[in-house]
Amino acid sequence: MTSRLVTNIGELVTWEPDRPIRHDAAFVVEDGAVAWIGGPGDTPATDTVHDVGGAAVVPGFVDSHTHLVFAGDRSAEFEARMTGEPYAAGGIRTTVEATRAATDEQLAGTVARHLQEMRAQGTTTAEIKSGYGLTVHDEERSLAIARRSTPETTFLGAHVVPVGTDRAAYVDLVTGDMLRRCAPHARWIDVFCEDGAFGVDEARAVLTAGTAVGLLPRIHANQLRHGPGVQLAVEVGAAAADHCTYLTDADVDALAGSVTVAGLLPGVEFSTRQPYPDARRLIDAGVTVSIATDCNPGSSYTSSMPFCLALAVRDMGMSPLEALRAATEGGATSLRRDDVGHLRVGATADFVVLDAPSYVHLAYRPGVPLVTSVS
Amino acid sequence: MTSRLVTNIGELVTWEPDRPIRHDAAFVVEDGAVAWIGGPGDTPATDTVHDVGGAAVVPGFVDSHTHLVFAGDRSAEFEARMTGEPYAAGGIRTTVEATRAATDEQLAGTVARHLQEMRAQGTTTAEIKSGYGLTVHDEERSLAIARRSTPETTFLGAHVVPVGTDRAAYVDLVTGDMLRRCAPHARWIDVFCEDGAFGVDEARAVLTAGTAVGLLPRIHANQLRHGPGVQLAVEVGAAAADHCTYLTDADVDALAGSVTVAGLLPGVEFSTRQPYPDARRLIDAGVTVSIATDCNPGSSYTSSMPFCLALAVRDMGMSPLEALRAATEGGATSLRRDDVGHLRVGATADFVVLDAPSYVHLAYRPGVPLVTSVS
Repeated sequence: MTSRLVTNIGELVTWEPDRPIRHDAAFVVEDGAVAWIGGPGDTPATDTVHDVGGAAVVPGFVDSHTHLVFAGDRSAEFEARMTGEPYAAGGIRTTVEATRAATDEQLAGTVARHLQEMRAQGTTTAEIKSGYGLTVHDEERSLAIARRSTPETTFLGAHVVPVGTDRAAYVDLVTGDMLRRCAPHARWIDVFCEDGAFGVDEARAVLTAGTAVGLLPRIHANQLRHGPGVQLAVEVGAAAADHCTYLTDADVDALAGSVTVAGLLPGVEFSTRQPYPDARRLIDAGVTVSIATDCNPGSSYTSSMPFCLALAVRDMGMSPLEALRAATEGGATSLRRDDVGHLRVGATADFVVLDAPSYVHLAYRPGVPLVTSVS
Repeated sequence: MTSRLVTNIGELVTWEPDRPIRHDAAFVVEDGAVAWIGGPGDTPATDTVHDVGGAAVVPGFVDSHTHLVFAGDRSAEFEARMTGEPYAAGGIRTTVEATRAATDEQLAGTVARHLQEMRAQGTTTAEIKSGYGLTVHDEERSLAIARRSTPETTFLGAHVVPVGTDRAAYVDLVTGDMLRRCAPHARWIDVFCEDGAFGVDEARAVLTAGTAVGLLPRIHANQLRHGPGVQLAVEVGAAAADHCTYLTDADVDALAGSVTVAGLLPGVEFSTRQPYPDARRLIDAGVTVSIATDCNPGSSYTSSMPFCLALAVRDMGMSPLEALRAATEGGATSLRRDDVGHLRVGATADFVVLDAPSYVHLAYRPGVPLVTSVS
């Protein structure tokens, strides 16, 4: 057993129920878990000491929604979108073609590079989806590659219907052979329930098939317009309904009475110039919310949780505290994890030291790399 | 004479008139200046070689508007503003009190720390203003401290009228004793011309007095409402009218026919939830624009030029190319510098290597620290 004292913490965010934030604090890590929390004056003896010099310490960010298994670059499509120029070649299909053409080594390299980039910005837990393969072979290898890096792998064969494929036949494939081959590499089943992707009955079929083989449901819903996705998420007890940009009062009520976390992905709205979701409305209604990057080469190629957190404060009506909670504990709840996203005794000791006296600086100093170290 | 070849550049932004962007490029630095630009196949012999591995290289950012000489932290005020809570103690006066109470060493340490942070994000030239001293002594030492780090120092005694001071007497001080003591440490004279700060006649008096002792004029104008500041900038031939959030057609026309750069500071609008300036309208009218951080502890505590550039694309109608130009050459024009902000032959070799194949990634990947190295 090895033990480490982390001390001289100016502000420590633990999310303990009675005192979520401590000042002038210290904690002890034993074998990778938080074993003790207190003040610097009464610390137990440990093998090593980590003096953070008065800095703020927060739980590692939990990015509950990414699409890191991809190939290709869509910066030209982004540039065309931002300048109002036509761009024929864009869309998910571009990434699907590039992903299918890439070797396993190339895909694994891209995943590793982005995870490293995310970790440098404070992300210690990341979910990774498939969804740019859209063949049995390419979905399976996408998930196998993702699984090397995270237990939070999500089978998203139902991302879009691939070009030239009959949609009913494709849903049969996703719920049949593809699911069978992918399930051993996945924890989650996901579907993009939206006009242009999958209808509510197709989405229900996908989620039902996934849960039948032991996967847990989550869903892309209500990103571009009102629709049935959020209600379906609640109906099937999904852990997450991600996007939630267009919600009716009935959608909000349904979420508030459910086990489903509303996943907010403001990087998407930033990079597509769409209106932001209304986090204030959700929180005021009692809905649990998460913030994630949706890191992908099309609609949100940020990997920065601090950036998304700052957007949530500026443009989604969240307080800095609410945004931090959504980016840590909210993400963990979205992944049904109680070992990460907080620093209570017993937690995995994933923590971030900031070059700042307070977590508030994550929003107060937007765009500035404030992460000093990640453990 | 020492020479260095920078080669294997996937995309090189030089701002040469006939080919502002080169692909598969190389350049030679001799004694700190760009001496040759070409392709990797025909490079001259040099003392050292810097292979950037296909990355994009852009000119170092020129941040033409910062307030780095300050003390204190206003994160609680920021938090209150974002959550709609009342906050009695806020405003510039908080920073003025803390700045006056700080030692020279503390102020110099803050300046150095922020300049280092800015450099790590690609800024190689920074303007620094006084304006949190507001006494002869404190303005003079603010500028003397700033001058150790940059030639681009700006006397902004006319930031606000200090609490408890008669405004006519303060304008007399700023244009009299304070100017006399500050001018030796400054290149620029600046004034905040806005309701609540200084009126147009007061502002004209400040700028006239400054130019009479050899300082060059720039101005804070039209930040919070329509007003006479931009017209005054054009009238006196100011190098910059910064903020430019509220402009009439006559203001835009005046700028278009002038030597005055419109300085856009989107970090302010981000951190105060104000509407963004309309860069598109200015560029379409032929106005030269710059982007800067306005780094200060009250209204914009970002030091990140890439962040401001991404905001300019998302929220100010600029293309990624226009935003990069405004953040480099535009900033240099705002500071009347022709040696920085570009990489044409003869330029100071201030350049940034990106962890990206194209400058477009600065907007395509918002919030992600993409600066690999800064020279």
